[in-house]
Order: sequence, then structure tokens, then C-alpha cells
Amino acid sequence: MQTRQGQSIEDASMSIIEDEIVSHDYDTWEWPIVRRIIHSTADFDFARDNRVIFHDDAIQSGIKSLNNGCNIITDVNGIPGLLNKRNLADFGNNTICKISDDKIANLAKKANSTRARVSMQQSAAEMENGVVVIGNAPTALLEVISMIHQNEARPSLVVGVPVGFIQAAESKAELEKIQVPYITNRGRKGGSPVAAAIINALFKLLRSSP
Amino acid sequence: MQTRQGQSIEDASMSIIEDEIVSHDYDTWEWPIVRRIIHSTADFDFARDNRVIFHDDAIQSGIKSLNNGCNIITDVNGIPGLLNKRNLADFGNNTICKISDDKIANLAKKANSTRARVSMQQSAAEMENGVVVIGNAPTALLEVISMIHQNEARPSLVVGVPVGFIQAAESKAELEKIQVPYITNRGRKGGSPVAAAIINALFKLLRSSP
Repeated sequence: MQTRQGQSIEDASMSIIEDEIVSHDYDTWEWPIVRRIIHSTADFDFARDNRVIFHDDAIQSGIKSLNNGCNIITDVNGIPGLLNKRNLADFGNNTICKISDDKIANLAKKANSTRARVSMQQSAAEMENGVVVIGNAPTALLEVISMIHQNEARPSLVVGVPVGFIQAAESKAELEKIQVPYITNRGRKGGSPVAAAIINALFKLLRSSP
Repeated sequence: MQTRQGQSIEDASMSIIEDEIVSHDYDTWEWPIVRRIIHSTADFDFARDNRVIFHDDAIQSGIKSLNNGCNIITDVNGIPGLLNKRNLADFGNNTICKISDDKIANLAKKANSTRARVSMQQSAAEMENGVVVIGNAPTALLEVISMIHQNEARPSLVVGVPVGFIQAAESKAELEKIQVPYITNRGRKGGSPVAAAIINALFKLLRSSP
């Protein structure tokens, strides 16, 4: 539900990005996603040192699941707030984020674990054919990778772009090794706006695909 | 409500930032805020080219208002989701974000304006002695600046860190000219995590101040 004025600002931003990027090696499906990340962060690093990486089947698998009204499981509450509400309503996708649940906090304390990690363990059922979106916590991403290895979780796409200094880059390097479709990036940068930009861009591709 | 494990990851991150920053010219009140931004973005630019700028009274004014349970008015829904929930509960602060209200969308269409701009106009009353937090929309920040100039809005602090290619840097340059306390940064970068990091850091300062 964007106003004409809002759309025109977005279009102008995208033009500036096209002008300034000079060159990139993303294909016609990938580039709208990377461009939206740059639009959300004003940071061209996401096409350079902190470049976005796509599993070969990531975009098609993600689009298909979103189109089927899949769950979107996130590590932090900030991500749902940044997603386009009309897309979620039109395609019937529920966002699920358990990190602030009292139950999660209690379980995490008992296990000397993180709330992020436990919130993923407690969302295994909702992940079935769902899209998992990690924008903040490396421990959440490492847990999802472990759950996939154990066949405890079977998402159709993992968007893993945690940010930070402890295990963020390492957890993303682990994600690049899994067989399940993923979208991630190299290095320390990432975050909720990057995660949300990827999902919003996937919906745009879904709407424009034949 | 952070687990011991979560706190230890945060402490380790902060140590890395202290090690890698080499030097900076922020004072003992400012640096914990800038450091938390770097922690949230993994981007040292916020102490360099996109450096954070503080009005002389910004931190004290913000802390005082938050301590008094002031409203926190945001331009996008992503910011409340990134704020520490316990702080809001303990100090009685309400978060207000009207951008997704149907009324705002209708008004914006009629006026050929942006939802961000109209949502600020429609929040003037709630801004009285409140903290305004703009993490995304330059038009929202420009509107708040205009409302302050017209004496239509009297917040105690404006956190203005919109991100992007159109008017973001320009709107922040305008913010640096106002008399009302502000926290902003130079250049195109910014965003919801930056905005939320500033508020979360202000609460930390509030809790640790005498």
C-alpha cells in the first residue's frame, strides 16, 4: 500500500543504485534482491566484500513457498515489522517469532542457551516447507543448520544474514555448505533490514513472475 | 530479559569493537551509543564517514524524558520491534507508529504526500516532551523539522537516522541546524537498527547513571 509519492522516491533510489554500482555479476533474478538490500542499507558492500550469495534453487524455492502461503519464521521481532503487510495478507503468510515468549526465556535459562537458539528449536513444526529468516542471531542460524542436518527441520528456504562480531560470518559460512536452498552474505554485516529486504524482494519477483 | 549466554556474546562483541576502533573522539556518554550502533551494524563507518553527531543536550534530554515514561514516536514499525521490551515496561514508555493506519494512507493519497510524512503530522500531540525516532523515511524527518520550526511539535529529543539515496543525507543535515536536542549521523547510511540501538543505549545510560 504505497503512495504514488512513496513509489517515486523508491524508483529514484533504484536509479541511483543502478548508476553507481558500475558493475556486478548477479543474474536477472538475483540482482533485484541485492539492489533492494543496497536500497535498504545504502551500503554497496552487499555486492562487494559482504556480497550476497544464492543457492542455485533459492529464489524459485522461496517464491514457490511464499506463493503457497508458507510460514515465515524469524529470529527477531524487528523483521515482521519491516515486511510489506499487503504481501503477507494477499498470499496468506503468517510470521512467527517466539523470541519474546516467556516459555522461551525460561527454557534458555535452564539450558544455559540463548533465547534465539531455543526459539528456533521450538519452531521446528512451523518450519515445514516454510521460509526461515535470521537477521540477527548467529546462534539461531547455527541451530537451524543443525536442525536441518538432523532432519528435525525441513524449510524450503533459509535466509541467513545475521550481523555482528561473534560467529556471524562463521555461521553464514556454515550455511553455504547445506543442501537446502539458502540466501546469505559473506562477512559481518547483515541485519533485520537486509533480511526483510530479501523477503520483500522475493514477493516482488513473485508478483512479476509469469 | 537477556540470558547469561546472550550477555556474554554481547560483551565479547563490545570488546572486539574496542580493540578494532583504534581511536575515536566521542566522550564517555556518547561512545556507548556509537559503540552500540557499530555492534548492531558491524559497520565502523558510523564513527567515520557516516559519523554520529550529538546535539550538546541530546543525551541528558533523552534520558530524562525516557525516565519520565515519555512516548517514543517512530516512523516505521520495525523500530519498536527492535527495542528492549523490559526497558519500555520498566519506565512506562509507549511506542507510537501510525504509518500502517488506514487513516494515514487515505490522508497521504489525498494530499499526494507520503504516509511517513502524514504519520508525523498526525502524531504532533503525542510528541509533546516525547522522543521522536526516524530510522527510515527522510520525508518523516523533514516533516518533524518543519513541525518544530512551526512550534507544532515540541519533542525533547529527535533521533533522526534515515537511510537511503533520496534526501536521507540532506534531511539529516537539516536536523543538525535545529535547536531542539537531536542525535543524527552524516551521509546515506542509517536505518531501524541504528535508531533502535540509540534508544536501547540511552536506556542503558539511564540505568547506569546516578
